[in-house]
Amino acid sequence: MKILLSNDDGILAPGLVALYPVLARLGEVAVVAPESGQSASGHAITVTHPLIINRVHVQERFYGYSVDGRPADCVKIACRELLKGLPDLVVSGINAGANVGVNVIYSGTVAAAVEGAFFGVPAIAFSQQLGEEVDFNQSAELAGRVLDRLVAGGGLAPGRLLNVNFPRITPDRRRPLGVRVVAQSTAVMQDIFERRTDPRGRTYYWIATPEKPVAEDADSDAVALDAGFVTVTPLQFDLTRREHLKELAGWDWGTLS
Amino acid sequence: MKILLSNDDGILAPGLVALYPVLARLGEVAVVAPESGQSASGHAITVTHPLIINRVHVQERFYGYSVDGRPADCVKIACRELLKGLPDLVVSGINAGANVGVNVIYSGTVAAAVEGAFFGVPAIAFSQQLGEEVDFNQSAELAGRVLDRLVAGGGLAPGRLLNVNFPRITPDRRRPLGVRVVAQSTAVMQDIFERRTDPRGRTYYWIATPEKPVAEDADSDAVALDAGFVTVTPLQFDLTRREHLKELAGWDWGTLS
Repeated sequence: MKILLSNDDGILAPGLVALYPVLARLGEVAVVAPESGQSASGHAITVTHPLIINRVHVQERFYGYSVDGRPADCVKIACRELLKGLPDLVVSGINAGANVGVNVIYSGTVAAAVEGAFFGVPAIAFSQQLGEEVDFNQSAELAGRVLDRLVAGGGLAPGRLLNVNFPRITPDRRRPLGVRVVAQSTAVMQDIFERRTDPRGRTYYWIATPEKPVAEDADSDAVALDAGFVTVTPLQFDLTRREHLKELAGWDWGTLS
Repeated sequence: MKILLSNDDGILAPGLVALYPVLARLGEVAVVAPESGQSASGHAITVTHPLIINRVHVQERFYGYSVDGRPADCVKIACRELLKGLPDLVVSGINAGANVGVNVIYSGTVAAAVEGAFFGVPAIAFSQQLGEEVDFNQSAELAGRVLDRLVAGGGLAPGRLLNVNFPRITPDRRRPLGVRVVAQSTAVMQDIFERRTDPRGRTYYWIATPEKPVAEDADSDAVALDAGFVTVTPLQFDLTRREHLKELAGWDWGTLS
C-alpha cells in the first residue's frame, strides 16, 4: 500500500512525526507537508504564487517534501507531480487540536484529506483534542488501531473519506472510552474577537475562538469527543443540499433574456 | 432588509462595485471585504495574525470596511463586531470566474456565503464565468433578477445558502438561455502544474488549473453553465456522508482502552 502523509501543522509537527512509523508498518509512506504551520487554512490553494518544494530530513528519522503552501496544495502536487501515480491512501495529521463541528470546514487537516478524495483516493484525517497533557505517541497508536479496523472492514475503499478525532487526556481518563460513529455538528461557534490597540494607536482584532461550538447537537462529533470517545465521521465533498434542490427546481424562473 | 456584501476579489473589485447599487435597491448595504484579492482561499480564516480593518471610500461611490484577511474573516468579524446585530442576508461576489464543481470548495466567494450560513443568516454567492468579454453590469442586473425571484418565493429564508453562476458572454449569446437548478459536479479537476526554474536555478511549480473539471456529471452546475444557463445550486455545510455513517455505525469497533 502506498500512503501519502500530510498535515496542516507543518512537516516538523510532532503529530506527523508520531504518525509516520505507524503508517510505515502498513505500507510505503511518502511525506508531503507544508513547510510551516497552516492552521485554519481551510481548503485554500495557492494560485497567485508559485510553490517551492524542498526535500527535507525530518527529525533525522525520515525524508519528506516540504511545500511552502497550504495542506491542499501538498496533496494536489504530490498526486500530480511528486509521486509516481496516485497513492492508495491519503492520511492527514495528527492535528494538534480537535476538528469537529463547523471547524471541519476551517480545517487544513481535513482539507488535505478532502483533496485526496477529489482524486478518488480513500482518505482519512486524524486530530487530537488538546488538553493539559498531549501524548502524540498514544494518539498515533490509536490511529493505527483505527486504521487496522478500517482496513479489515473495507472502510478505506475508493470514495471513502473519514474525519477521526481523539479525545483529550484528563487526569481520570488517560484512554478513550471507545469509538462513536457520529455526524458533524452544525452548531454555531462562539467566535470572540479581542479588540486591541497597536503601538501606533490603531485598533486591531485577534480571533479567540474556543474549540467548541456554543449549542451542541446531540449525537454529534463535538458531544461524543467531549464525552471521551474517539469520533469517526464519514465525509462527502458534494455540498448540494438535495431537499432545497428539489424545491427550487420546481419554481418558474422565467427567462432572463 | 440589512445586507452584508463581501467577496474574495477584494473590496475594489469591479464585480462587487457593480453589485452594490443592485443590493442598495433591496435594503441597507454594509460592505466588508478583503483588502486584497483572495482567490482560491477556501474557507481559510486568520488565527495566527491579527486583523487590521480600515474604513474606505470605494470608487467614490460608497463606504465599506477593508479587512487584511480572508473572505470568511470578513463575514465573521462583520457579524460579531462591525455590524449592529446580524444582517438579514449575506451576499458574496460577483466573483471574476465561475465557481462550479469542486471549485466550490476552493472558493473564497462561496466561503463568505457559507460563513453567513454558519450564523443562520440566508446567504448567496454570485460568480461570473470568464470569457473574452466580461460585463459586470449585466451580471449585476442578472443577480438583481435572481434575488427578486428568491425574495418573492421565500428562497432566502434562514438556513438557505445558494451558489449562483452566470454563463460567459459569447459573440452569439450575450444573454443567458435561462435558469437551471442543478447539483454541484463532483468530477475530477484537470490540475496542471507548470514546472519552471528560477533565476537561482531552483525548480518551482505554478498551478495552471482550468476552470472546468475533466469529466462532467450530466445535470451538474458545470455542464449547465457551459451550456449557457444561469446555475442555482443550494448548498449545505453539514459534510456528513449519511450512508457511510449508517454502515460504519453498525461495526464492532471494540474498545481502545
